[in-house]
Amino acid sequence: MLRSFAAALAALAALAAPSATLAQQSAKHQVVFQVSDNDPAKWNLALNNARNVLADLGTDNVQIEIVAYGPGLGMLKADSKVAGRLAEALDNNVGLLACENTMQNTKTTRADMYAGISYVTAGVTHLMQRQREGWAYIRP
Amino acid sequence: MLRSFAAALAALAALAAPSATLAQQSAKHQVVFQVSDNDPAKWNLALNNARNVLADLGTDNVQIEIVAYGPGLGMLKADSKVAGRLAEALDNNVGLLACENTMQNTKTTRADMYAGISYVTAGVTHLMQRQREGWAYIRP
Amino acid sequence: MLRSFAAALAALAALAAPSATLAQQSAKHQVVFQVSDNDPAKWNLALNNARNVLADLGTDNVQIEIVAYGPGLGMLKADSKVAGRLAEALDNNVGLLACENTMQNTKTTRADMYAGISYVTAGVTHLMQRQREGWAYIRP
Repeated sequence: MLRSFAAALAALAALAAPSATLAQQSAKHQVVFQVSDNDPAKWNLALNNARNVLADLGTDNVQIEIVAYGPGLGMLKADSKVAGRLAEALDNNVGLLACENTMQNTKTTRADMYAGISYVTAGVTHLMQRQREGWAYIRP
Repeated sequence: MLRSFAAALAALAALAAPSATLAQQSAKHQVVFQVSDNDPAKWNLALNNARNVLADLGTDNVQIEIVAYGPGLGMLKADSKVAGRLAEALDNNVGLLACENTMQNTKTTRADMYAGISYVTAGVTHLMQRQREGWAYIRP
Repeated sequence: MLRSFAAALAALAALAAPSATLAQQSAKHQVVFQVSDNDPAKWNLALNNARNVLADLGTDNVQIEIVAYGPGLGMLKADSKVAGRLAEALDNNVGLLACENTMQNTKTTRADMYAGISYVTAGVTHLMQRQREGWAYIRP
């Protein structure tokens, strides 16, 4: 009886597991920003948004990523008009992620990109994955 | 045995509790609209969207908020080009929320804003919080 | 005892059920794209995004919809500048959904639309519903 009871509990726990993944929302705020416009004003807005979130929630209480893809890739290039602000973002543990699909399609190499950023295979898929994991999604 | 059984059930219930929070989605539809463009066409689109949602789901079955921040703040100013439509939105219990961060950065005071709207400390953080609470997010 | 044990398990399972709905996320990736700009570059971007998601996750592992409403309705018209790409999207089981609210407001009939697409009463409500069902939301 005790053994079958334990087995039943384990089965129930397994049933509950997927929601437990979503429940991790409770611990720390998480937000992913999408940058897909070739518009430095939008790039600045995304960086302002990230800074405000850090100030409002506290750097220890939030995880932030900015994903640049499509026409937005230029934000994370070495010659970006907001390059001067990217170092500050990295210092604040804001993840800066460039889309490798977009890079391939536009003959852009890592040598063209701002040093210190990170990469994802496909920006859109990453945005989907983060939402699936319970992250908030903001498209400035 | 009965006591440990009850304890195990309580532990399992606690495990399941966070998902119960998400399950509140079932009761009422909830949607937050983001307005972050300095573009009256977008402001009208957001107001049209809200009106359509009310018509489609019924005013009693949905909770709607429009958050204006960054370059979108002008939507909720007293001299907004859509000021004539804001009263109707408020009458329909559509929450109109201005970002106080943006107001500070642009030397805007409540005296400059449309009477009757509400305020949030940071528009972006509010959008994150609503998504965390299970609200849908629409960026017109 | 065994009976009350089973009843308790059933009650717990019921408690866990709403999260089980959300847990359906685990099975297949699902994403809905919003097109609400009268901008063929955005239409192409949405179609590129869909194609990349299919390539990245595999056509059998993802469900994709593109919802066109408001100023974005033109994307799905018969004379759309991306009409040549819509057939490919349909072939790949990408759902193409036009907003009937927008059609009514702009005196557009199904005869004006690209053959083979589908329709939703209100684009915005559909986007809300999909998010409620656990779909990711991308606004290119």
